[in-house]
Amino acid sequence: MTVAEQVSLLQENVEIFLPDNALAEKLTLAHQENRPLIIKLGFDPTAPDLHLGHAVVLKKLRQFQELGHTIVIIIGDFTARIGDPTGKNKSRSPLSEEQVTVNAQTYVNQLSKILDVRKCQIRYNSEWLASMDMSQAIKLLSQVTLAQIMQRTDFNNRFEKGLPISLHELMYPLLQGFDSTQILADIEMGGTDQLFNCSMGRQLQEGMGKVGQAVVCMPLLKGVDGSAKMSKSENNIIGLTDQPNEMFGKVMSIPDALLEEFLHLTTDFSPLQKQEMLTQLQHGDNPMNLKKQIAANVVTQYHSAKDATRALTFFQNQFQNKRFEEKAFEQVSFAALLLPDPAQCTLIDLCKALKPEESKSNLKRLLEAGSVTVNGQKQTDAHLPMLSTELPFKVKIGKRSFFEVTA
Amino acid sequence: MTVAEQVSLLQENVEIFLPDNALAEKLTLAHQENRPLIIKLGFDPTAPDLHLGHAVVLKKLRQFQELGHTIVIIIGDFTARIGDPTGKNKSRSPLSEEQVTVNAQTYVNQLSKILDVRKCQIRYNSEWLASMDMSQAIKLLSQVTLAQIMQRTDFNNRFEKGLPISLHELMYPLLQGFDSTQILADIEMGGTDQLFNCSMGRQLQEGMGKVGQAVVCMPLLKGVDGSAKMSKSENNIIGLTDQPNEMFGKVMSIPDALLEEFLHLTTDFSPLQKQEMLTQLQHGDNPMNLKKQIAANVVTQYHSAKDATRALTFFQNQFQNKRFEEKAFEQVSFAALLLPDPAQCTLIDLCKALKPEESKSNLKRLLEAGSVTVNGQKQTDAHLPMLSTELPFKVKIGKRSFFEVTA
Repeated sequence: MTVAEQVSLLQENVEIFLPDNALAEKLTLAHQENRPLIIKLGFDPTAPDLHLGHAVVLKKLRQFQELGHTIVIIIGDFTARIGDPTGKNKSRSPLSEEQVTVNAQTYVNQLSKILDVRKCQIRYNSEWLASMDMSQAIKLLSQVTLAQIMQRTDFNNRFEKGLPISLHELMYPLLQGFDSTQILADIEMGGTDQLFNCSMGRQLQEGMGKVGQAVVCMPLLKGVDGSAKMSKSENNIIGLTDQPNEMFGKVMSIPDALLEEFLHLTTDFSPLQKQEMLTQLQHGDNPMNLKKQIAANVVTQYHSAKDATRALTFFQNQFQNKRFEEKAFEQVSFAALLLPDPAQCTLIDLCKALKPEESKSNLKRLLEAGSVTVNGQKQTDAHLPMLSTELPFKVKIGKRSFFEVTA
Repeated sequence: MTVAEQVSLLQENVEIFLPDNALAEKLTLAHQENRPLIIKLGFDPTAPDLHLGHAVVLKKLRQFQELGHTIVIIIGDFTARIGDPTGKNKSRSPLSEEQVTVNAQTYVNQLSKILDVRKCQIRYNSEWLASMDMSQAIKLLSQVTLAQIMQRTDFNNRFEKGLPISLHELMYPLLQGFDSTQILADIEMGGTDQLFNCSMGRQLQEGMGKVGQAVVCMPLLKGVDGSAKMSKSENNIIGLTDQPNEMFGKVMSIPDALLEEFLHLTTDFSPLQKQEMLTQLQHGDNPMNLKKQIAANVVTQYHSAKDATRALTFFQNQFQNKRFEEKAFEQVSFAALLLPDPAQCTLIDLCKALKPEESKSNLKRLLEAGSVTVNGQKQTDAHLPMLSTELPFKVKIGKRSFFEVTA
């Protein structure tokens, strides 16, 4: 494939190029030197749960990979093992070596849903950071000014608001940038929120007299609730490991305003197919039809076409048939729930036993929000004893989970 | 000596105590634990020329030493060897190990004019800093916030003005503070401009769960030109190694407004003697008399009483006899100047040969300011050829240097 053809393919959906002609420049270089490009993606092993937002970047990496370029995944084990030594921010408490290994494995497993991980290089940044001494640390710090680092929006906002910024936090973008100098990255990929950190790598490479990496940033996918960013902490994600029915239902729940964005960023329809779908929508087609096509396409990517068909049927039974009694209930025997003390079982215990993948706090929120019914009656008391409810009974948890608990 | 007596002696002239009761607190501790206090003074081996401004701090240290406390001199060889890796600031270019050793030796020699250096501990901070790794560097950085570091006036001013601050510069106060944790300093001494850096040591010690050092800051001695701070770069110093006549003359050149400050901070008169001298001044005594007493006392401290007497006589001959012809000229043979090319000798070459200890740029400034005369005639042209001036001739350079150049 010519450089121009590669550029045309790869530029689709990209939100920011640094520099503007990043793709043409780097692809021409690779062509001249007759070698693949080295494309870097950094990963913080504190948060191994990937969702469709991450997939936007990963799918772009797959395009590079399919064109024969080399993907290098950097696992930031060094900083994860140090954590945030101030302990002010619980989300950055240090991880043990075992936790890092487990998280990295989970992460690579999830990557394999999109990338050919056997062709990726997986590097741990402790390889070069653990052996750096203080004089190297000082030399690294000397290459960046305070004014540059304060251009990062979150630092600037916190400083302006008088919120504390520990000095070591200023170091993290430099360490991420230093990773680029070690693997000789040609391009670093990320979401648009990674532009600053990625451009640090470019600056540090240039500071060493090398050619700076280009930066390619993908747009941030919105959450299923329509909020600015899909994020686990916002509880608005579609996980890559979500089960087919869950995944299908979540796509169906997005606001119509996000349809075009989801069509572009989450599906693998061809540009022509996408154009046709959007034309139909503009001509007054029910948005529900496009939503089903997107949902089925997403489930097909992460599971199979068969799973997608089943999920569509399930969705139509559950949500498009209006009457509660007609829905398909999953039969579960009370005994099979293996409750530690069945006689003391409360409603929250039951919900947890039925949906072990959900956190208790999440289930409690659902309960309090009136999203749990028993035999069609809304129940908001988490501590309701279940012993007096006659078996079999029907339980609905949230919008998409229906159980019939039998003897 | 009781704690109260020690406090009373040591508090003289101190400008800042941190905390307010620093002396009583630490001296009581030392008394209870039946041990000497550890008093720290840091030294940057890039600038080994000590002057009366440094002596203000050193004389306070001598008082501690005479009371049996332990003085620890920290030579900041680690940071000096790294220098300022950005190369933006020439005064912080890295020093070789040899330069650091030579500068440290020069420094210790000068210290010996005030302290009993055999009783001081001399420590190089590379001892603990060179072996620190990146994870320790990050832990150190994590103990301080950006807002705290920006309280340092010079950082804040530069940031406000949009001047670049390299991130490694933020690290230096932390390294200085870390030194305190390693030598278990009870008190760190410095000029008032060191308050911030010294308080960093207190914070880091406390962050490690130890007792934080107290900080004792001495006032900054004004320059002989009356400007805010005596400083080599301002060319307004009285060096500890200045020759007696030079030293005496420089003290005589200070503005009358500085008399009281110099009496307190540079002499070793007793409090009672000082009081009497000030009373005489207030009763209309000529300030010149007090100035001579201060000058003689300073020369006695750094040279001898005999040198002080000679310098007084020299001064009276040179400056208090009005006529140029009556002054005492140092006889120098033109041949002994060992000029590389005597036939091409210009006025600036001659001045440099006569005063090799002065920089050429300084001499040029003097010339341009009209402070150089040849045979009583002001000469401002540095390139004036000297071949045509008949030997012997008389040259005056600045206020205090008189030469008769002979054949």
